[in-house]
Amino acid sequence: MGSSFGRLFKLTTWGESHGPALGVVIEGCPAGLALDVVDIQYELDRRRVGQSAVTSPRNETDRATILSGVFEGLTTGAPISIITYNKDVDSSKYDDLRDVFRPGHADYTYWAKYGHRDHRGGGRSSARETWGRVAAGAVARKILATVGTEVYGFTRELGGISMETFDRDQIEKNVVRCPDARAAAKMVAAIEDAKASFDSLGGVVEVRATGVPVGLGEPTFDKLDALIGQAMLSIPATKGVEIGEGFAVVRSTGSRANDAFYADEGRVRTRSNNAGGTLGGISSGEELVVRVAVKPTSSVARSQETVDIALQPRTIHVEGRHDPSVCPRAVPVAEAMLAIVLADLLLLNRAARLDWDPGR
Amino acid sequence: MGSSFGRLFKLTTWGESHGPALGVVIEGCPAGLALDVVDIQYELDRRRVGQSAVTSPRNETDRATILSGVFEGLTTGAPISIITYNKDVDSSKYDDLRDVFRPGHADYTYWAKYGHRDHRGGGRSSARETWGRVAAGAVARKILATVGTEVYGFTRELGGISMETFDRDQIEKNVVRCPDARAAAKMVAAIEDAKASFDSLGGVVEVRATGVPVGLGEPTFDKLDALIGQAMLSIPATKGVEIGEGFAVVRSTGSRANDAFYADEGRVRTRSNNAGGTLGGISSGEELVVRVAVKPTSSVARSQETVDIALQPRTIHVEGRHDPSVCPRAVPVAEAMLAIVLADLLLLNRAARLDWDPGR
Amino acid sequence: MGSSFGRLFKLTTWGESHGPALGVVIEGCPAGLALDVVDIQYELDRRRVGQSAVTSPRNETDRATILSGVFEGLTTGAPISIITYNKDVDSSKYDDLRDVFRPGHADYTYWAKYGHRDHRGGGRSSARETWGRVAAGAVARKILATVGTEVYGFTRELGGISMETFDRDQIEKNVVRCPDARAAAKMVAAIEDAKASFDSLGGVVEVRATGVPVGLGEPTFDKLDALIGQAMLSIPATKGVEIGEGFAVVRSTGSRANDAFYADEGRVRTRSNNAGGTLGGISSGEELVVRVAVKPTSSVARSQETVDIALQPRTIHVEGRHDPSVCPRAVPVAEAMLAIVLADLLLLNRAARLDWDPGR
Amino acid sequence: MGSSFGRLFKLTTWGESHGPALGVVIEGCPAGLALDVVDIQYELDRRRVGQSAVTSPRNETDRATILSGVFEGLTTGAPISIITYNKDVDSSKYDDLRDVFRPGHADYTYWAKYGHRDHRGGGRSSARETWGRVAAGAVARKILATVGTEVYGFTRELGGISMETFDRDQIEKNVVRCPDARAAAKMVAAIEDAKASFDSLGGVVEVRATGVPVGLGEPTFDKLDALIGQAMLSIPATKGVEIGEGFAVVRSTGSRANDAFYADEGRVRTRSNNAGGTLGGISSGEELVVRVAVKPTSSVARSQETVDIALQPRTIHVEGRHDPSVCPRAVPVAEAMLAIVLADLLLLNRAARLDWDPGR
Repeated sequence: MGSSFGRLFKLTTWGESHGPALGVVIEGCPAGLALDVVDIQYELDRRRVGQSAVTSPRNETDRATILSGVFEGLTTGAPISIITYNKDVDSSKYDDLRDVFRPGHADYTYWAKYGHRDHRGGGRSSARETWGRVAAGAVARKILATVGTEVYGFTRELGGISMETFDRDQIEKNVVRCPDARAAAKMVAAIEDAKASFDSLGGVVEVRATGVPVGLGEPTFDKLDALIGQAMLSIPATKGVEIGEGFAVVRSTGSRANDAFYADEGRVRTRSNNAGGTLGGISSGEELVVRVAVKPTSSVARSQETVDIALQPRTIHVEGRHDPSVCPRAVPVAEAMLAIVLADLLLLNRAARLDWDPGR
Repeated sequence: MGSSFGRLFKLTTWGESHGPALGVVIEGCPAGLALDVVDIQYELDRRRVGQSAVTSPRNETDRATILSGVFEGLTTGAPISIITYNKDVDSSKYDDLRDVFRPGHADYTYWAKYGHRDHRGGGRSSARETWGRVAAGAVARKILATVGTEVYGFTRELGGISMETFDRDQIEKNVVRCPDARAAAKMVAAIEDAKASFDSLGGVVEVRATGVPVGLGEPTFDKLDALIGQAMLSIPATKGVEIGEGFAVVRSTGSRANDAFYADEGRVRTRSNNAGGTLGGISSGEELVVRVAVKPTSSVARSQETVDIALQPRTIHVEGRHDPSVCPRAVPVAEAMLAIVLADLLLLNRAARLDWDPGR
Repeated sequence: MGSSFGRLFKLTTWGESHGPALGVVIEGCPAGLALDVVDIQYELDRRRVGQSAVTSPRNETDRATILSGVFEGLTTGAPISIITYNKDVDSSKYDDLRDVFRPGHADYTYWAKYGHRDHRGGGRSSARETWGRVAAGAVARKILATVGTEVYGFTRELGGISMETFDRDQIEKNVVRCPDARAAAKMVAAIEDAKASFDSLGGVVEVRATGVPVGLGEPTFDKLDALIGQAMLSIPATKGVEIGEGFAVVRSTGSRANDAFYADEGRVRTRSNNAGGTLGGISSGEELVVRVAVKPTSSVARSQETVDIALQPRTIHVEGRHDPSVCPRAVPVAEAMLAIVLADLLLLNRAARLDWDPGR
Repeated sequence: MGSSFGRLFKLTTWGESHGPALGVVIEGCPAGLALDVVDIQYELDRRRVGQSAVTSPRNETDRATILSGVFEGLTTGAPISIITYNKDVDSSKYDDLRDVFRPGHADYTYWAKYGHRDHRGGGRSSARETWGRVAAGAVARKILATVGTEVYGFTRELGGISMETFDRDQIEKNVVRCPDARAAAKMVAAIEDAKASFDSLGGVVEVRATGVPVGLGEPTFDKLDALIGQAMLSIPATKGVEIGEGFAVVRSTGSRANDAFYADEGRVRTRSNNAGGTLGGISSGEELVVRVAVKPTSSVARSQETVDIALQPRTIHVEGRHDPSVCPRAVPVAEAMLAIVLADLLLLNRAARLDWDPGR
């Protein structure tokens, strides 16, 4: 269970890291949406490994094919099935890992839960599963674009280095996706150092949405915040999520933390945006701001203490082709998840009131 | 939509702050569980307002009545309906708030989403809704107790004051629920200061679970972490959630952050617990550690800039009986949500493998 | 599990026949719907026992109270909780049935499934559970009325007597709810005969919907037909369901069974309605026609062979106050379920296409 | 929406009749089940067209490939993705049908609902979609086999000819899947007559399950009967479903229709099986008996009155390669759906009671 996400706009991902293929099935995409595989491939290419010196050298072309749900360039309302075939699979390096649990990985817990597991490349627990999320996210973005909502993200902090300036145009110009070019250069250096010492780094990814309609979020358990919480913490290697000022706001006071309302051109706006675009679990129309804590990559080529399935002590050394920091590639994944949450809530919101007006 | 939570152990809460009653319906509680209303009332009393000088002076007896699903002291497998009647309701103070949006509250977003709202005491968006969660959480705890799992929580930080020592026995001995008696005294003083200056404070609530079976969590979207993310961020006034070392781990490295495995008395254990009890979204058997950022209470008795439903500027002054910090009362709510997530995943886990053994 | 029904318009019923109360929680009713308890009570009174000589003499006032989700006469989008308190409960007659299984009832299967059961009055398996369905159905009808859809039902056949004429105005004028006054008189006589011989009768209930918008139903598993199938066979004592000509159409041929299309005043219509208002699982705009097979009441005051929980042979004689035929009271329940299915699909349909137009 | 079915054992089908591929994703199959593509292909071959003179001459090899969820011959608990590529696709015959609505088909309602549709071969509404159901049904059968449950089906009636004898061994020996060899011969003759006169025939398919554990079914809306109702009426061309004696029982009386209980070798049994294996929506352990009304194939090569998308009158003549009666091929589909419902409820039942014992 658990491979599906969403209420009306619902995706199901399937596939293992070293299986023959991976894919996603999207249910509930409205009919009449212009959709081309190029839209999807663009986002997948942003997620792809082998993009730079700071990501894994594996060569996955990640080519997407749409198998259903689109006819003559428009969605039909039927499930959209998107697939990619695994090509550059070398499972031999995993033979030694068959019976031993890599620290920080899901090897032990999958073994304990299921009894039987595909250990090759992490199997189902591999971050390769996020391929389908990014593909579905591309579809969600197309839905959001029809109401003027846009999602973007970046690396805010990496290896202890924080961005100090913000220039959105810089984001895709550096390999760590940092909006501060100087900080980006330091982050790249930090990653190279970590790689040289067979270690890895964590960071903070931030995703934002602009042009979000007021009213998205379903009290009380499917609040916008709550679904973002689920969405972000379902991404591999994430350990925390915050909305707006998040953990920092706990040291503020009510009079400072509250965002004052004012009216501007017939719209209700807030003077500040400490809340990060939600109030009572519903979007307020202000920019949506979400931050995600990404732990250092667990695969490090150092000797580590562990045990095997016979509970015997073992020392392992995780070889393989791994990202020394997953932040740059986590950016498009986190963006995709935010887009999926918003598209789902946008459709759900059509049922919130009797007199719902699509033009509102 | 959104008033239900859970897959097999599923609760639906209903009711408004100033309506005639509030309640919860729990579906999927297994038959044969010993359940008495006293078990539920105990937890509700921990959540209740009016417990101390640092919480709201309202007098809600919060008395629970079980209306279905229990026969001769045992659950029957049928839905368990639990109700409480609102008694100490004074809506007159809210008359002035009918058409104006309180900053930091859900007034504006509910109005924008639904068009029509019960403004009295926050209506459906009131934290009073959490009554049903705590009631359901008490049932979830009973299920967890059958496998030796226990959930507890405390205030880790409040108004900028952090706990420095940990003594679990202290938690329920002070009104802020802090495991460090000295820090607790400072927190109480800080709350009194805030109250005197008509302001409010935020903090960090931590919840833990011990004796968690290995294997809880459903990859990939219903990971234990992901459901905790949804559960915690569905609690009013929360702005962030982290598992284990959470946001702090982003400044570590893979070699330090990984928890080494070893075998102890036939069980796989980890030397450290940076991961906070989950690996790959599945419980590892180590203590589950969750932290929640709670914002300062939005209701402050100071003049605040806002607008009304006609988008005219207004200045408001939120009177009423409010907690200057909701952390102490958020503790039992966060505990309840964690218990609910774990009970649900415990039942789901029975279907994870063909040879599932309830005694394992 | 299983006490909830619906995707967007979702109800959860709770309560046992002889417990303190029964109720229903409705999630997903759009905000802004005018709703008064009188609307609900009207339908509940149609379902109520003790209405005539042919129904049970129990006196349940069945009084509904709305506890949430409605403010100043309009729904708010929050869950609507509706409750009734059991008053005329006499459980003593059930003492003898505590350990013995009534043939045709759920006693044995509940005991086998749950181990522990509330045997009084059938507990959760009692048809009294349908109270909540009828209450929710009344709300669904109000939603449907906003688009001009109306649901009604009647007894088509009872005790082997079929209606031969159809006059809708007759339906509520006779105690069996038959649109043919002459057939109704025969049905009443048949019921009286059955009662005198301590036996019971079955029949066929038909429900129809007029003014159904084209487009309701979600291929492929949530087809309109499929959801009707689930809805009707979830009603106690039902053993079959058919749409349109149903089982009779199997003896026709394709050329005769197909309903020819023609255009009438800008609308697509069909010359005949063998399909009963659905094509490919989606409403066609023609009258929706559903028939339900209702078995003879299982409680008969005759000696019957059975066993007890120790698997010892027993002879029982089911006393109690039972309807000799449940058809007349099944009519409002089947109507309610049809209204609920349609209201749910109506809301879901808002998400079917990008350019959805509420006025279409 | 609506392309998923099931609660714990959940399938999602995708694909169009003339698209590049079709498939199914199965979530919630427990880990540790031995599964080979041969198991699946066997059932798919039973459903395949071109098997005999009475089915469509199209040549679909229907070859299944398992893309995920199985490792070294055992399921892993991860989603199982199964795919087939469409090969023998000739869409040119559908060019004339692009803008016109075939009577008895979903053309009009899809057009009205979605605005945009893939008309080729019926697109998503084609019975070709059932490929994925049969594949998933094969997996469900493997789960059921572990508890000794077996599902089988047959044609009970076709073109007005009913079976008069029952010999299970005959079923797969004749092309109409009738357990009465003499009736089978008459059915074949009737089909040939219908074909010669460019017409089609309907029938009744019966599916049964033996060795069903007591206790499957979730009151009150997910009763075994209710889920069977949804499952069967989601199959294309079905118009009715009944359990046990179904519509015939409405002419019986309570004293005759009730199945008396007795004890046999430590098990509770019933003397008769009018109820068809369910009581109160829960399996009783008796043989499960379900009948499904299948309408005559809507595609008939005769002139039919209809309209086009401009609402202009048209006469059409549906050419193409169609089954003159779908009953024989509906048998494996109905079996698959019953197996899926039972496997799902079997897994759900593990959570019904605290002391659930997998060996019970």
